Amino acid sequence: GPAMLRLLAAGFGGEGWALWSVPHPGGTLRPRVTLVLCCPDSPLASPQEMLIGRYGEGAKLIYELQDQGGELLALRYDLTVPFARYLAMNKITNMKRYHVAKVYRRDNPATTRGRYREFYQCDFDIAGQFDPMIPDAECLKVVHEILSDLQLGDFLIRVNHRQILNGVFAVCGIPESKFITTCSTVDKLDKMPWEEVRSEMVGEKGLSPEAADRIGEYVQLHGGLDLIERLLQDPKLSQNKLAKEGLGDMKLLFEYLTLFGITGKVSFDLSLARGLDYYTGVIYEAVLLQQENDHVEEPVSVGSVAGGGRYDGLVGMFDPKGRKVPCVGVSIGIERIFSILEQRVEASGEKVRTTETQVLVATPHKHLIAARLKLISELWDAGIKAEMLYKKDPKLLKQLQYCEDTGIPLAAIVGEQELTDGVVKLRDVATREEVDIPREKLVDEIRRRLEP
Amino acid sequence: GPAMLRLLAAGFGGEGWALWSVPHPGGTLRPRVTLVLCCPDSPLASPQEMLIGRYGEGAKLIYELQDQGGELLALRYDLTVPFARYLAMNKITNMKRYHVAKVYRRDNPATTRGRYREFYQCDFDIAGQFDPMIPDAECLKVVHEILSDLQLGDFLIRVNHRQILNGVFAVCGIPESKFITTCSTVDKLDKMPWEEVRSEMVGEKGLSPEAADRIGEYVQLHGGLDLIERLLQDPKLSQNKLAKEGLGDMKLLFEYLTLFGITGKVSFDLSLARGLDYYTGVIYEAVLLQQENDHVEEPVSVGSVAGGGRYDGLVGMFDPKGRKVPCVGVSIGIERIFSILEQRVEASGEKVRTTETQVLVATPHKHLIAARLKLISELWDAGIKAEMLYKKDPKLLKQLQYCEDTGIPLAAIVGEQELTDGVVKLRDVATREEVDIPREKLVDEIRRRLEP
Repeated sequence: GPAMLRLLAAGFGGEGWALWSVPHPGGTLRPRVTLVLCCPDSPLASPQEMLIGRYGEGAKLIYELQDQGGELLALRYDLTVPFARYLAMNKITNMKRYHVAKVYRRDNPATTRGRYREFYQCDFDIAGQFDPMIPDAECLKVVHEILSDLQLGDFLIRVNHRQILNGVFAVCGIPESKFITTCSTVDKLDKMPWEEVRSEMVGEKGLSPEAADRIGEYVQLHGGLDLIERLLQDPKLSQNKLAKEGLGDMKLLFEYLTLFGITGKVSFDLSLARGLDYYTGVIYEAVLLQQENDHVEEPVSVGSVAGGGRYDGLVGMFDPKGRKVPCVGVSIGIERIFSILEQRVEASGEKVRTTETQVLVATPHKHLIAARLKLISELWDAGIKAEMLYKKDPKLLKQLQYCEDTGIPLAAIVGEQELTDGVVKLRDVATREEVDIPREKLVDEIRRRLEP
Repeated sequence: GPAMLRLLAAGFGGEGWALWSVPHPGGTLRPRVTLVLCCPDSPLASPQEMLIGRYGEGAKLIYELQDQGGELLALRYDLTVPFARYLAMNKITNMKRYHVAKVYRRDNPATTRGRYREFYQCDFDIAGQFDPMIPDAECLKVVHEILSDLQLGDFLIRVNHRQILNGVFAVCGIPESKFITTCSTVDKLDKMPWEEVRSEMVGEKGLSPEAADRIGEYVQLHGGLDLIERLLQDPKLSQNKLAKEGLGDMKLLFEYLTLFGITGKVSFDLSLARGLDYYTGVIYEAVLLQQENDHVEEPVSVGSVAGGGRYDGLVGMFDPKGRKVPCVGVSIGIERIFSILEQRVEASGEKVRTTETQVLVATPHKHLIAARLKLISELWDAGIKAEMLYKKDPKLLKQLQYCEDTGIPLAAIVGEQELTDGVVKLRDVATREEVDIPREKLVDEIRRRLEP
């Protein structure tokens, strides 16, 4: 079965997330069967002006379609902005969905560093006016579930809140005009030491050394509920409205995460800032950890595999009347996760099957193509995943070799003798054992053998 | 479960068709789990010059990307040409895969007629040098299976062969330079009477009236093995090498289709021509039939839902050394099929669920958000598809109403009393029956209730 799909379905809170329960362009709801088959999708192309200005620095990487006498269109840059536009255009006020699809960047591909012009993203989002932190906590639960199920090794989900960051900047005396640029410098704390971050703040960003030092006292903090409680008592922060609200959210979030039993892998980390402008509340990022060999040092992050947050203003930007739809979501870095899984499979030397064929229909000698076609047709009609070689008279050895090469567990062999006796020789490819099975019992016997 | 996916998997011969068992851009095979999750895909964009010239008249509908200092790229116009290019670029000599993905046409959308600029296609193809007609027969078997399983009503698969058509044109005295244009006129025979087709041949296409009449004698024929045998004895056709080879193929194909038990829905039809230049052998098209009300007339075609054929030359066009990889494939008109299924669902008034949620976790009074979060977390961890309202203190009535509106079959209710007694009240939404279940037995009981 589609193991990963089931896994992910489990990952998505085990619950009926819609894979785009999308109104058809014609207007009516597609029947449910379509949801899986054709993965209804946000439109690939959007009017260019809808995209420009949403991505800050990223805008130069937007792929535009040639002006051929219509509107100017551009390719999907990520899945969040098209989702927000979709909600606004269709006047949808609440929805939860996941979406696995390709996005496009007009970048110079650097395949060695896993950077492509066309790559998959996997997002899930909860849109709607709900009580605080309930959907946010669910998003973190889903991330926790996916990363646990995939057995990628130890991981940590870092969490912060835009309002707390803004509150910190405010009480440290940073003018509001410098919040965003200060944010992007703070965000580098996971890659460089505080001293370098500080000198970028003072040098490039023009903060006063005193303000930078004050910021440094906050953004180097990380912890759990205890830290949240401490900051709620902080004489400066507790006077700041933004920070107080943010800390209130954070406290509630951690209470919910405690009920979900996942606080062990979640860290409230004041250095997490995340670049995109559209986040308005909780933000988070999941990183894989690698235990150092000597077991002395702290685990080291080997890179982000998921990230997201709350973006309450984005849908309103696409709505002609500015109606807001609060949203929270996560993007899972599936390209990165797959490359990790791939390296692991490669390192293990494990053979990976790319098909799910259960039975090869084979013949032991010439002039039996009719017997093979008849038998395979019976198996297909019974829902058995069967295959045969596309040769009129293949050698038996070749057919059995094909089973071994491709990992097909069973071979159903019919020769003249079997046809006369009304049986099929069923061969277990691994053990090479062969048993004659009456033809009318073959399907049941195959099913029995394939039971897990 | 993903009913349609299972259905389609059954449709695809019940066997392990790869959904792109694609080498990763990095070069190694992705582990099998990825095959379903992210639907590896042919590249969306191709160098423009690879596409222009493959689609004849269609070329003007190709979507081009803006020249932003790199190669000129264009969006995928169909799934066949990118598949052929993929095989050539990766030097793959045999592969079978199915692919469900979007394609793009720079057309004026006419949504009422189901014509969009962005729509899904669903293709499957078998590439490789194999014995004649074995893969071709499998393609027809798959089409037959899909259309039967989807219960779309009566259908007919029309089959013809490019070489037979060319042979017919040759023996009727048409110069080779007019084969393709004559083909496209013949193709209209399913929509207009022979007299009109004839006058287009003579008027617009410049054939002599005698040649047109000779063509008319052939292209109005349809039948089965009997017709093939008769044409093999035809004094003129049996002298033409192309026609003889084509009829030989067709005879073998019908023998295989007889073994598959599907000749009842297959008609050898000499008027089927199909527009695209790249077909080289067998061609086919499936049409839905509608029984007229008075039961007197013959069934009427209500349009094509699948089509394809053999294209042995296309891969070679993309290979720098011109190496050929014979291919045969089908495109299923899923947009059309879905709109039929949709209309049917709408007409029946049947309610269609868009999620698969099995249980709503509910509380009967205030201050129980913690109980709900703890219970839903247990259910998620056990793989149950559970949902709860994103409100801190929702009314019980609202929660039950939500189950009825969205078709959730079970509600798991925890109040103070249930918490004290260590039970959960399990409610059958349809019958409104409620039973207290010991908490530790809840997961098993839910699973039991959900068994089909």
